[in-house]
Amino acid sequence: MNTSAGIVSAQHAVFDTPFIFKSGAVLLCYELVYETYGVLNADKSNAILVCHALSGHHHVAGYYADNPNNVGWWDTMIGPGKPVDTNKFFVIGLNNLGGCHGSTGPSSINPETGKPYGASFPVVTVEDWVVSQSRLANLLGIRQFAAVMGGSLGGMQAMQWSLSYPERVRHVLAIATAPHLTAENIAFNDVARNAILTDPDFHGGNFYEHGVVPTRGLRLARMLGHITYLSDDAMADKFGRSLRSGKLGYNYDIEFEIESYLRYQGDKFAAYFDANTYLLMTKALDYFDPARDYNDNLDQAFAAARADFLVLSFTTDWRFSPERSRTIVNALLHNRLNVSYSEISSAHGHDSFLMQHEHYHEVMRAYLNRIAGEFSS
Amino acid sequence: MNTSAGIVSAQHAVFDTPFIFKSGAVLLCYELVYETYGVLNADKSNAILVCHALSGHHHVAGYYADNPNNVGWWDTMIGPGKPVDTNKFFVIGLNNLGGCHGSTGPSSINPETGKPYGASFPVVTVEDWVVSQSRLANLLGIRQFAAVMGGSLGGMQAMQWSLSYPERVRHVLAIATAPHLTAENIAFNDVARNAILTDPDFHGGNFYEHGVVPTRGLRLARMLGHITYLSDDAMADKFGRSLRSGKLGYNYDIEFEIESYLRYQGDKFAAYFDANTYLLMTKALDYFDPARDYNDNLDQAFAAARADFLVLSFTTDWRFSPERSRTIVNALLHNRLNVSYSEISSAHGHDSFLMQHEHYHEVMRAYLNRIAGEFSS
Repeated sequence: MNTSAGIVSAQHAVFDTPFIFKSGAVLLCYELVYETYGVLNADKSNAILVCHALSGHHHVAGYYADNPNNVGWWDTMIGPGKPVDTNKFFVIGLNNLGGCHGSTGPSSINPETGKPYGASFPVVTVEDWVVSQSRLANLLGIRQFAAVMGGSLGGMQAMQWSLSYPERVRHVLAIATAPHLTAENIAFNDVARNAILTDPDFHGGNFYEHGVVPTRGLRLARMLGHITYLSDDAMADKFGRSLRSGKLGYNYDIEFEIESYLRYQGDKFAAYFDANTYLLMTKALDYFDPARDYNDNLDQAFAAARADFLVLSFTTDWRFSPERSRTIVNALLHNRLNVSYSEISSAHGHDSFLMQHEHYHEVMRAYLNRIAGEFSS
Repeated sequence: MNTSAGIVSAQHAVFDTPFIFKSGAVLLCYELVYETYGVLNADKSNAILVCHALSGHHHVAGYYADNPNNVGWWDTMIGPGKPVDTNKFFVIGLNNLGGCHGSTGPSSINPETGKPYGASFPVVTVEDWVVSQSRLANLLGIRQFAAVMGGSLGGMQAMQWSLSYPERVRHVLAIATAPHLTAENIAFNDVARNAILTDPDFHGGNFYEHGVVPTRGLRLARMLGHITYLSDDAMADKFGRSLRSGKLGYNYDIEFEIESYLRYQGDKFAAYFDANTYLLMTKALDYFDPARDYNDNLDQAFAAARADFLVLSFTTDWRFSPERSRTIVNALLHNRLNVSYSEISSAHGHDSFLMQHEHYHEVMRAYLNRIAGEFSS
């Protein structure tokens, strides 16, 4: 049975109504790049929005005709017969505003200056993204999503949908996420940001004009990120203390396999990801905190929500631990909302949400089948 | 009661016998800077060697006449009437070979070239340090230490003493340490090293000649280090999500208190610590692995040991978790050695070993009193 969403292609939505950010900054016009999988039903009740995390984008499932190896980042989850079954659902993936995969972001040309936005691109919040996503929904004629889903930073957007547009989302699937970052989470982001900000090739965010890229900073940011995506145990199992050449070199070349892995991941990332987008994404993470406006009372923050929730966490995720998910669940329950919660036993840390894992996928499939039962396909 | 070791002053020991490193590299002559507290008894049986961790040095207790605010880094632990009672013990602190506080290291002048060693300074291992420390003991006429003690990387040196010179140490006090680094530990070190190595001001380790310092890299390394020294909970308690100005700034200036703290720590460290020494220290950590030569069998690695051991860990230390200490304890017990183990309940993570903590100090005091009972003062 073919379970791939098949050949897909990116589409562009152009918005020429000014966008006012939470910060007060304004963008006069912008584009969002997105992909869709499956067919929108007659009453437009089967749409699912997939929100991406820090380094994700709109290419969520399927592959491109001219590059069959470029498979969507959540292709294990989404496709015909998969947990998010595109025979039943109309699934939308988009690249967020401020991104670097086709949506308007810091590396895009500012029509007012003819130069890349660079440092002048506004700081984006999760709330801003949800507004921009609602405009995309309007364009596609979707009044209410069957579900909004995402992992990590994507899960924050899914939760924010239930707060910003309670009537426009029936189910929120919040995976490996948190009600806000801890001081330690912010600290890791701050080190990553400082690596980029202090790279001499960053040029205050306007490196495009100098024909350089702050590769060193991006590389360090990604290396550090990777440590927090994996679990201590997973790293021990996968790399342990294995030496690349079998013996100690007594120099600063790559010696341990884990060093080789990290540097490879760093190099790969720095070759394509935009440094300003990285900064924006980490700021959006730091800022997300729906309880802040309610004296840090998360129960009150969720009072407006009307959706049903599936909350999932992974046992070895120390970046967004199960405890953080349970805090969300408690706040939802205190508001008498329908909540399903599952703590998935997985060795792979925060990255688990991107992986093919039987129990995880079973839980997702069961919940999504329930959603599919609510509308006529 | 005065419990300060009082006014102390650094002493220099000059060694003109060539030092052969584990790597095979040779240093023709070198100096070690050290301090002593208390009085060596007639049969020289009351000496304790204190080994320092990554950023430590020889100034362990007391203060300097010309700078009374410069108090030793373990002054809470060591002094008259303190857990390491200098009325009973003769305590030695030294700056390790490769350091940047007075002992010969990368920033010292190489007499053969008239220029700083820089990148040519050999990579040092824990085993090398223990050899260099034994030469200092010889110079001071100390045949056998009552105890060798240290926390973190210092604890590794204390353990190595029992393996390299089983007859020269009666007690090993290994605090907040591990039998080797995990892949995750190495990964953090690798990111820190890469921050320094890729700083354009590093100049391949020979930055001295260029009149610059790789401040950016050192700063990042220290910021990252600090995250791993603290616990998630301690950071949450101390900083939480407090904003410095009370509101979001929507820019990349310091916003959260935790950012302010980290950057301050980074700046302070980068202003005085030598980048090459930082690299050497992290390599020594990565390399320490006494079981490597015994097919990863730690029991066999400790077969040569004769000392009694006090092993201490701290509940919230995720850099060197209690589990790592228990691994050491088990290996020692399998060799029928005398072992005391205590897991101290502390909120302060890895940094706990440097702090004044009642239960911790009580355990240390009790164990050291027992040692003091073994010799005539």
